[in-house]
Amino acid sequence: MTITPFPVASIAERLAQLRAAPPLVHCLTNEVVQEITANAVLALGASPAMVVAEEEVAEFAAAADALLINIGTVYSAREAAMRAAVSAANEAATPWVFDPVAVGALAYRSRFARELLEQKPTAIRGNASEILALSGRNAAGRGADSADSSDVALDAAIQLAQETDAVVAVTGATDYITDGEKTYSLPYGNILMTRVTGTGCALSAVVAAFCAQKDHTLDAVAAACAVVALAGGDAARRAQGPGSFVPLFIDTLYRIRPDHLEEIVHARA
Amino acid sequence: MTITPFPVASIAERLAQLRAAPPLVHCLTNEVVQEITANAVLALGASPAMVVAEEEVAEFAAAADALLINIGTVYSAREAAMRAAVSAANEAATPWVFDPVAVGALAYRSRFARELLEQKPTAIRGNASEILALSGRNAAGRGADSADSSDVALDAAIQLAQETDAVVAVTGATDYITDGEKTYSLPYGNILMTRVTGTGCALSAVVAAFCAQKDHTLDAVAAACAVVALAGGDAARRAQGPGSFVPLFIDTLYRIRPDHLEEIVHARA
Amino acid sequence: MTITPFPVASIAERLAQLRAAPPLVHCLTNEVVQEITANAVLALGASPAMVVAEEEVAEFAAAADALLINIGTVYSAREAAMRAAVSAANEAATPWVFDPVAVGALAYRSRFARELLEQKPTAIRGNASEILALSGRNAAGRGADSADSSDVALDAAIQLAQETDAVVAVTGATDYITDGEKTYSLPYGNILMTRVTGTGCALSAVVAAFCAQKDHTLDAVAAACAVVALAGGDAARRAQGPGSFVPLFIDTLYRIRPDHLEEIVHARA
Repeated sequence: MTITPFPVASIAERLAQLRAAPPLVHCLTNEVVQEITANAVLALGASPAMVVAEEEVAEFAAAADALLINIGTVYSAREAAMRAAVSAANEAATPWVFDPVAVGALAYRSRFARELLEQKPTAIRGNASEILALSGRNAAGRGADSADSSDVALDAAIQLAQETDAVVAVTGATDYITDGEKTYSLPYGNILMTRVTGTGCALSAVVAAFCAQKDHTLDAVAAACAVVALAGGDAARRAQGPGSFVPLFIDTLYRIRPDHLEEIVHARA
Repeated sequence: MTITPFPVASIAERLAQLRAAPPLVHCLTNEVVQEITANAVLALGASPAMVVAEEEVAEFAAAADALLINIGTVYSAREAAMRAAVSAANEAATPWVFDPVAVGALAYRSRFARELLEQKPTAIRGNASEILALSGRNAAGRGADSADSSDVALDAAIQLAQETDAVVAVTGATDYITDGEKTYSLPYGNILMTRVTGTGCALSAVVAAFCAQKDHTLDAVAAACAVVALAGGDAARRAQGPGSFVPLFIDTLYRIRPDHLEEIVHARA
Repeated sequence: MTITPFPVASIAERLAQLRAAPPLVHCLTNEVVQEITANAVLALGASPAMVVAEEEVAEFAAAADALLINIGTVYSAREAAMRAAVSAANEAATPWVFDPVAVGALAYRSRFARELLEQKPTAIRGNASEILALSGRNAAGRGADSADSSDVALDAAIQLAQETDAVVAVTGATDYITDGEKTYSLPYGNILMTRVTGTGCALSAVVAAFCAQKDHTLDAVAAACAVVALAGGDAARRAQGPGSFVPLFIDTLYRIRPDHLEEIVHARA
């Protein structure tokens, strides 16, 4: 299995496509991160909408361009809404992304995560501990933070992609995005983002936004991870800490242009 | 029907009144925007409180100076709490403001919105798509964002005010505030605010805070819209994007003084 | 009863200990403040996790190093989860902190607060109105904001500590931390923090993080209050208002080092 760097030209192309046809992203996500998630999606140029009632999620998931399911603070009423939304998304061929926050650590969400896997997500985005747990291996995490490096979860990600037909992104210092056959790597991670709540969850919403581009989901997911990691890295270099990082990160997502990307990649070196 | 500019002196007078007698605003609002809503109300000098349990909303709505009902992320348990709070507010003559987020796009919330209209809100604040939908006309929105200009919804706003006896504010590049007889216009909108989640929802909470001034609700609502739009415009001129906008916006709401308003209005020109 | 200033050397020692062994803090807190709470705990170097489902809170509270219970937006489903989490924490000897937001003002939460008191919290953190109400005295608050000075609640705090065996922190311009026998004072409060939603709630999560240091809970709680008040004061001196305060506050929590504390204390003078 070879690992290929994802080309900057492909990131630029996908970003231009998102700005030209802004998708409506239905976010069923966790309570802690809804504001940063909505702001990241809006800043990038897409439209987020947090519709949560079991009575209306199916109608909305069918009309949206993509759906995000994040189980960070799942509880029974929200679980029922997620089930209804996923079912409607599958029927309407709306792409949907699964963010399995803290899976493995707790029995209730682990059972629900397995059920969601059977519903065939278009893509899965998690940290190393989550991807290891989802593929049935031992992970070192206790909460939402990963105690493992993304490298450790690469084999698990490939196996998970093969078993589920989903594109799997395991993010960390290096992001790996795989469809089980081809694997891209992105060396753009930075440690400051791990000290800000919701950056991973916001990334998953951006992954959903790019998955609305229904062709070549592997490239769409890689482009999403690249844009967020590059914007995050750029913001981190200018931030005084995780507090000033947030406004800089959102501003960068808003201002980043396809023809900026080469420059940002080089500024890292 | 003539449309009158809302005088800056009236904005100043209402702002001074709010600072002199800070109202307690009971906010039953959506999950995504609670932090920016609370911070906007606090920065302005009033007291927000998010009390949500069906068991205690009636007690609190009766004691508060104003109530906000925002259906952005409504679901059945929250719907029951809103019903109880509105009923108690009406009994206690607590003014209440209705923000009909994304109404029209979805059957469940549209039905609930019609029920709330029958409970006689003191004021209604929405974007063009929402006001069009609420008055039974076709709107172009799919989610929480408006696809229509506020001008398009002016007739609908006037009709809605006449039918419901509420003051209706339709906000956008120009805000229109009408009681069905008299209509104010405010040309202070700016596009950056539409890329930040919760600015419209926070505005609705500020509208509730000003509605605690029970005399001339039309003027109170117009003053609320003006203060938020002027502070937002001032912040937008200094922001690098939607991320840096938020702290600047909150700071401006905190620092804005009645005798600053003329200067801010002129700085726009 | 003598009141002792809490020594800066003790704050430094406790902060160094937290950084050396970062605790996992299970936060069952209110809807409005989850993001600032998670970011404050992360910035300081600990790990927050908001696990809320009744199905999994017991498992998580038993595995975590500390638990926070904040009743700001409590409702029946969350109440059941809190009950299960507290019970599991007590069984596993996980320290837990109670933040009785707006207790006294409303019958439903006041009844639940009394029930929680009987479950023997390790520490209680509230403003003057809340501590007065919790000890059965009259308070002047209507919502989450205190209308009383912390001095007024000192006797109530001492009595509450004696009756419940909890360490009680009543915070304001001066913070008092007492175990009913010994009382520390911290003169580091600043008014700007009262205009930012969630600073008190985030403090309670930091108190939980320090309570994971199971020896001498009185000192642990005092150190938590001191670190947050000193970081807040430092941020407030550089902020333009409550909006710019938040990123500065989080950055300061991230950057503050045990050997900075003397300097920050002196800069106040």
